[in-house]
Amino acid sequence: MNIFIIVANERASSFNAALKNAAVQVFRERGDDIQVSDLYAMGFKAVADKQDYSSLPDPDCPYQVAQNKASEIDLLRPDIKAEIDKLLWADLIIFHFPFWWFSMPAILKGWIDRVIINGPLYSKGRWYSNGVLKGKKAFITLTTGAPETAYCKTGINGYIINLLFPIQHGIIHFLGMDALDPFIVYSSSYISEKERKEKLDEYKEKLFCIEKASLTSPPNVELYDQGTWKIKS
Amino acid sequence: MNIFIIVANERASSFNAALKNAAVQVFRERGDDIQVSDLYAMGFKAVADKQDYSSLPDPDCPYQVAQNKASEIDLLRPDIKAEIDKLLWADLIIFHFPFWWFSMPAILKGWIDRVIINGPLYSKGRWYSNGVLKGKKAFITLTTGAPETAYCKTGINGYIINLLFPIQHGIIHFLGMDALDPFIVYSSSYISEKERKEKLDEYKEKLFCIEKASLTSPPNVELYDQGTWKIKS
Repeated sequence: MNIFIIVANERASSFNAALKNAAVQVFRERGDDIQVSDLYAMGFKAVADKQDYSSLPDPDCPYQVAQNKASEIDLLRPDIKAEIDKLLWADLIIFHFPFWWFSMPAILKGWIDRVIINGPLYSKGRWYSNGVLKGKKAFITLTTGAPETAYCKTGINGYIINLLFPIQHGIIHFLGMDALDPFIVYSSSYISEKERKEKLDEYKEKLFCIEKASLTSPPNVELYDQGTWKIKS
Repeated sequence: MNIFIIVANERASSFNAALKNAAVQVFRERGDDIQVSDLYAMGFKAVADKQDYSSLPDPDCPYQVAQNKASEIDLLRPDIKAEIDKLLWADLIIFHFPFWWFSMPAILKGWIDRVIINGPLYSKGRWYSNGVLKGKKAFITLTTGAPETAYCKTGINGYIINLLFPIQHGIIHFLGMDALDPFIVYSSSYISEKERKEKLDEYKEKLFCIEKASLTSPPNVELYDQGTWKIKS
């Protein structure tokens, strides 16, 4: 398989980084091809702004319109183009990040904002079951500060499945990809070395047989009215 | 009232910007004090990284630990400190942004990651009903590409209330603030000039009597077990 790992982790010595290193090791042993975008190490530009499309003849348009225009006349910035190429190349995409403010760190959000360009990667109607990245798989590998119980259905932070829905549904499914269950290490800064080792082993085991992981497919656009995008009654 | 508006909008000519301008106008007419952080105009640094805490004696620690340490020894960067001061000054905080990938643009996520510092603004147990910003109000003013029907309970994008839950609950409530209902302009790039004017008027009306807006309070921490953060049974 072609594996693309996107990492948004500011510390090379963190447990989040150890998980990423374990993933690279497993996929190497399996003989897969791997590309890693380590956003902090790359100094990835996080802010989607006019600078990205300053070379357009008419740059004063909404950012998503500029993405579309620039792709048509081959004016995408090299840093954006390189990431799109990895995305198109990959069979499996893994997003590795610590859970900051119930979402991803800004540098990864910026990767999403800038790399998932309007036109080539999605446009009206080319989403969910009709999405451009259909057939690919993706999942999230997450570390949290709070314990698992804080993220259960009666936990104070809210149910983790609901908190990740904007990403699972609005990014992974939206693009047409099948979503594997997220791999989550709760309280990663507070668990013991022994527990960390167990989580690393569990992660490696999951990755070794990643083909067998259960997945959810994007909603079928045929079931929705294409004017309103409400489910057909 | 002291009003703090945080705007993450890359185009000064967009409808999202018009909404922000309308808000400023209303609050001026009401005689409120206003501060605006226009993140794109400020060139706000979006990425939470080591550079923010490079002046610490021991900068190799998790970012949130560095936030806490730096605040204790008065080593916060001026750009972060200025935003914290506005937050503490404000009675009402409004987040103005276009809905990008089912969330906020990276520049605003970076503001959250960098400004809401561990220690002074939250720490273990000082959250939700026990949050540091208790008594303040906050809400989201949002523009979307897709129509309202795509964000209803049977809409393909998912129910907007669920999609905004990580922000309403995980940021506004988490910090102890009461959350007003979001103000949302759907399909903002596709509606007519007349519809835009109507939405601007509706927004101004809401803001003129903002004291009367309905709100939801954060969950009561007393109802949760403080070891597990699950609801007490």
